[in-house]
Amino acid sequence: PREGSDGEDNAEVEAAKSIYMVSDGTGWTAEHSVSAALGQFDYCLVDRACPVNTHLFSGIDDVERLMEIVKQAALEGAMLIYTIADPSMAESARQACMMWGVPSTDILGPITEAIASHLGVSPSGLPRGAPGRKVPLTEEYFRRIEAIEFTIKQDDGALPRNLHMADIILTGVSRTGKTPLSIYLSQKGYKVANVPIVMGVELPKTLFEVDPEKVVGLTINPLVLQTIRRARAKTLGFAKEARSNYCEMDYVRQELEFASRIFAQNPVWPVIEVSGRAIEETAAVVLRLYQDRKEKCLMPRISKRY
Amino acid sequence: PREGSDGEDNAEVEAAKSIYMVSDGTGWTAEHSVSAALGQFDYCLVDRACPVNTHLFSGIDDVERLMEIVKQAALEGAMLIYTIADPSMAESARQACMMWGVPSTDILGPITEAIASHLGVSPSGLPRGAPGRKVPLTEEYFRRIEAIEFTIKQDDGALPRNLHMADIILTGVSRTGKTPLSIYLSQKGYKVANVPIVMGVELPKTLFEVDPEKVVGLTINPLVLQTIRRARAKTLGFAKEARSNYCEMDYVRQELEFASRIFAQNPVWPVIEVSGRAIEETAAVVLRLYQDRKEKCLMPRISKRY
Ligand SMILES: Nc1ncnc2c1ncn2[C@@H]1O[C@H](COP(=O)(O)O)[C@@H](O)[C@H]1O
Ligand SMILES: Nc1ncnc2c1ncn2[C@@H]1O[C@H](COP(=O)(O)O)[C@@H](O)[C@H]1O
Ligand SMILES: [Mg+2]
Ligand SMILES: [Mg+2]
Repeated sequence: PREGSDGEDNAEVEAAKSIYMVSDGTGWTAEHSVSAALGQFDYCLVDRACPVNTHLFSGIDDVERLMEIVKQAALEGAMLIYTIADPSMAESARQACMMWGVPSTDILGPITEAIASHLGVSPSGLPRGAPGRKVPLTEEYFRRIEAIEFTIKQDDGALPRNLHMADIILTGVSRTGKTPLSIYLSQKGYKVANVPIVMGVELPKTLFEVDPEKVVGLTINPLVLQTIRRARAKTLGFAKEARSNYCEMDYVRQELEFASRIFAQNPVWPVIEVSGRAIEETAAVVLRLYQDRKEKCLMPRISKRY
Repeated sequence: PREGSDGEDNAEVEAAKSIYMVSDGTGWTAEHSVSAALGQFDYCLVDRACPVNTHLFSGIDDVERLMEIVKQAALEGAMLIYTIADPSMAESARQACMMWGVPSTDILGPITEAIASHLGVSPSGLPRGAPGRKVPLTEEYFRRIEAIEFTIKQDDGALPRNLHMADIILTGVSRTGKTPLSIYLSQKGYKVANVPIVMGVELPKTLFEVDPEKVVGLTINPLVLQTIRRARAKTLGFAKEARSNYCEMDYVRQELEFASRIFAQNPVWPVIEVSGRAIEETAAVVLRLYQDRKEKCLMPRISKRY
């Protein structure tokens, strides 16, 4: 998705279908679900054969603003996807949409009801951020922040003496996505270090002293890597000479082979191919491996207590 | 939520109800939706009056493994929440759950169907990561990674000369959550810089030279701040003297007043109270302000093109 003002690219915008997302909270749940569902239409989104604009309205916790949004959706011929905790406000959304001919889907209600009957308790009906509600400063809260701060400090091979403190250590050549992957995992509460593999540069000794079960190698198709490196060199405005080396196919291949040899010498490290995978997809693979190794469980899963 | 092995804390685990989440993809959509819905049961989750364990099974793209999971759910008396793109596999999930008496909810199907009829095109039925599907190296992909890398480099007041390159600049005293908030926003594609306010330390000149509309002040209740600082001092193992200063109520109050005066001198900067707000909640407020100022729109929204 690209962000854009409503006015931009008028011809396309006119043809585009709108999806309104409304939440009494942050709107991230609606956005996440809609973006997953839109994955089912990738085939016609890529070339903008079926252009879509999404509009996220967050913090909508009174009926007046809700009604304005429904009316606006009707004017634009938009559909409306909502997460509203208060049952009577959710019902207003449903009825107003029906009245105004706006197709609508409630994505919080059904799952909340299912969980309520499973647990045998009623939902509070209170939106996130309702007055009086306090975000508890739980252990988990501090753990997540610590993980993020640790991960930032360890980025790009910094502080190799701290590798033993990491939960997960990622290693691979430049532009295999170590940094964004580390950050993504850190937000889920894992302390991640990443160590770059650079041809001709020795890896830190500590990498071979830590538990090898927490090291993960990243590899990538050479053509994909070259494309990514070219884009990066352009952004950074590398000097022409440096760029030609960093992005040159021979060099790219040699460096990947250099990495492969290191991986072969450390057969306990799993190696993940990142080409064609989004960051969050690689993250899922890393965590599946992590959990497998930790739990030695027949059915690999990530478990949490609430 | 806390991660934990299944065996831990047996007494509690036995009483806890299980929620199985199954996805043919990463499982993050199911996890996100379940965690939002569980917010509706916070009131009985906090004291573990209605303990819940979630179990995430990702990458489940064959019926055999799906069936094993459903059977296991039946054994554990769990409910099952799923996102499965392939319609016939989703139907198998539904039927198997019915047969085994496992309450189940499909959270991808309904939203996909609603979008399909709105767009007038059919869903592909292909899961994320289906063979042949390629993650396109779009401009957005590069922009997001650039935002993350920029944000890491700018953390904690680093490189003040680059402040003009940021989309958003966060400022506030230590432990107002600038770092995790910056990282959260960077993952949404925003280049974020954060500048700490420390009593007696001059702020970088560049902070007052950039467009003030992109600066956001963070403030916090002194008691909450003290709690957070104490937790941090413990983690970092600060020397006793330093700790007593950093966490001492008088000092905390003075530093917050110092920050308030700076905010008052820069009335264009909005000031957000972070006490009792989760990172993602503050992020939603920041982006609402950002969008408001950029679009001067009657109905503030975050718009994207797909
Ligand atoms: N911790 C929570 N407590 C209560 N409701 C929540 C919580 N988290 C999310 N929700 C609700 O779940 C829906 C999605 O949240 P959001 O992702 O913030 O838009 C909204 O209706 C929120 O009010
Ligand atoms: N880009 C995509 N293309 C196709 N399907 C997707 C995409 N992203 C998510 N999905 C589907 O949406 C559901 C939720 O995805 P996930 O969050 O990865 O578990 C799964 O059934 C995925 O297969
Ligand atoms: Mg990096
Ligand atoms: Mg910080």
